[in-house]
Amino acid sequence: MLTPADARTAYRGGLVAPTTGHAPGFTQANLVVLPREWAYDMLLFGQRNPVPVPLLDVTDTGSFRTALAPGADLRTDLPRYRVWRDGELVDEPADVVDLWRDDLVSFLIGCSFSFEQALLDAGVPVRNLEQGRNVAMYRTLTECRPAGRLRGPLVVSMRPIPAGLVATAVQVTARMPRVHGAPVHIGSPADLGIADLARPDFGEPVYAEPGDVPVFWGCGVTPQAALMDSRPPFAITHAPGHMFVTDVPDSAYREF
Amino acid sequence: MLTPADARTAYRGGLVAPTTGHAPGFTQANLVVLPREWAYDMLLFGQRNPVPVPLLDVTDTGSFRTALAPGADLRTDLPRYRVWRDGELVDEPADVVDLWRDDLVSFLIGCSFSFEQALLDAGVPVRNLEQGRNVAMYRTLTECRPAGRLRGPLVVSMRPIPAGLVATAVQVTARMPRVHGAPVHIGSPADLGIADLARPDFGEPVYAEPGDVPVFWGCGVTPQAALMDSRPPFAITHAPGHMFVTDVPDSAYREF
Repeated sequence: MLTPADARTAYRGGLVAPTTGHAPGFTQANLVVLPREWAYDMLLFGQRNPVPVPLLDVTDTGSFRTALAPGADLRTDLPRYRVWRDGELVDEPADVVDLWRDDLVSFLIGCSFSFEQALLDAGVPVRNLEQGRNVAMYRTLTECRPAGRLRGPLVVSMRPIPAGLVATAVQVTARMPRVHGAPVHIGSPADLGIADLARPDFGEPVYAEPGDVPVFWGCGVTPQAALMDSRPPFAITHAPGHMFVTDVPDSAYREF
Repeated sequence: MLTPADARTAYRGGLVAPTTGHAPGFTQANLVVLPREWAYDMLLFGQRNPVPVPLLDVTDTGSFRTALAPGADLRTDLPRYRVWRDGELVDEPADVVDLWRDDLVSFLIGCSFSFEQALLDAGVPVRNLEQGRNVAMYRTLTECRPAGRLRGPLVVSMRPIPAGLVATAVQVTARMPRVHGAPVHIGSPADLGIADLARPDFGEPVYAEPGDVPVFWGCGVTPQAALMDSRPPFAITHAPGHMFVTDVPDSAYREF
C-alpha cells in the first residue's frame, strides 16, 4: 500500500491493521468526532492548546469529507475506530457508518508519526521504531488550558534520544509546528509528574540505550484524555495506532 | 507610554489615538467580538484561514479578559471601536461598556505591526513607516475557505520592498507564522485582482521607491471583510489602526 488512496481503500474493504509504515511519506492524523453541541469547546481547546492539539482540519457539520484527502470517507477509511459514551469506551468497530449523524463534526489532529521520519532523515535514531513498539505516552501534572466543558492533562510522548543529538531533535521538530513542534520538556520526567518511564499511561514502554536522554513532545492523545475526563455524551475517535492516512505529504508540514 | 499597561490606562481614561509607536516591542492585536451564536463560525474561519486570521487568543463566552494581558478590560482598553449591525458600520465609540453582553466572545488576531519591527531589525525598510502612513490593504480575488455562514475574500497588506531585500523579508516574516508569516504573493498585483496599487481598499496608498517590488502579506482586516460580506446581526471590532496593546513581547512570536 504505497499510496494513501490504496491504504484507505484497503481499510474500507475490511483490513484492520495499525497504519505505521503504510503510505510512507504521507501525513497520518488523529481523529476526534463530536456532536456540534460539543464542537465549539473542542475547537477552542485546540486553539488554546496548539502544541498537543494541532488542528489540521475541521469538517463542516455533518460532513464526512475532509480537505486533507478529498476522495476519502471519514466513516469507513480508518482501519479501526473507538466509540465513547459519557467518557467510557463502549466499542471498537471497523467503520462508523451506522453511528453517523448529521450533527457530527470531525477534527483531524497532527500526529508525531510525521516528525519521526524527519528525525530519521536527520540521523536521529527513533527507538520505538527500532524496537518495533508503539511510542510511550504519559499523562502529566500539567493541565491544558480548559475550553468550556473540556479540560484535561497534557499528554506527552517520550523518545529516548542520544545526548549528542538532542539539539538536532529540537531543531528538526521545531520546524514542524503543525505536528507538535519542538519538545515541551527534556530530561527530567519527575518534573512532569512521571514516576516511572517503564509504565506509560498509553502505548508501550520504549527502552533507552546508554547515553540516551528522555525527550517529551506534546501528544495527540491529549484530546482523548480530555474526552475521558470531560465525558461528552457521544464521541468517536481513531483506535490507537489506527490513524487517518491523508493525501498530504509530510513535507507540507516542514516549515523554514 | 512605554508600557502596555500605561497605554491601556490612557485609552481607558479617554485618549483616542492610533496605537502605532505606543508600547514599542509589544504585540498589538486586531479585535473581533461576536455573539456566541456566531462564534463557532468565526473560530472555524480562523482555523481554516490561519495566514490572514491567526487567532492569538479567544476569550471565554461573556468574559472581557484575555490571557494576552491579564489586567486588561477589552470593553474599555482600546482607543476606538467599531460597532456593526447586519454588516453595516453604525458607530465608532471610545468604549463598548454599554454594549457588552453575556453572550459575547472576543477574538484577538495577530497584526503585521509585529513583523514590521522585525523587518527594520533585519535592515529591510518599511515604506509605510517612512511615509508616515497606514499600510495599504486590498481585497483580492482569492476567496478564503468559508466556515459556516462566514465567507469573504483574502485581504492583503502590501509593502514595497527593495528587490535585493525581498528574500530577506520572506525569511524574517516566515519565522513569525502567528502574525501572518511569509508573504502570500510577490510582485504581480494583477494576479491577485488588484488593478491599481494607488487605490487601496483599506488604509492609505504607500509609494514605491525605484527598484521596489510589491510584496503582499495576509492581513488581519480579512475577518472584517468577512463580517461586512456575511452580515452577522451584531459585531464589535477595533477601529483601523486603533489596536489592542497586549503584554506579550513581539519576540514571543518569533520562532526558530
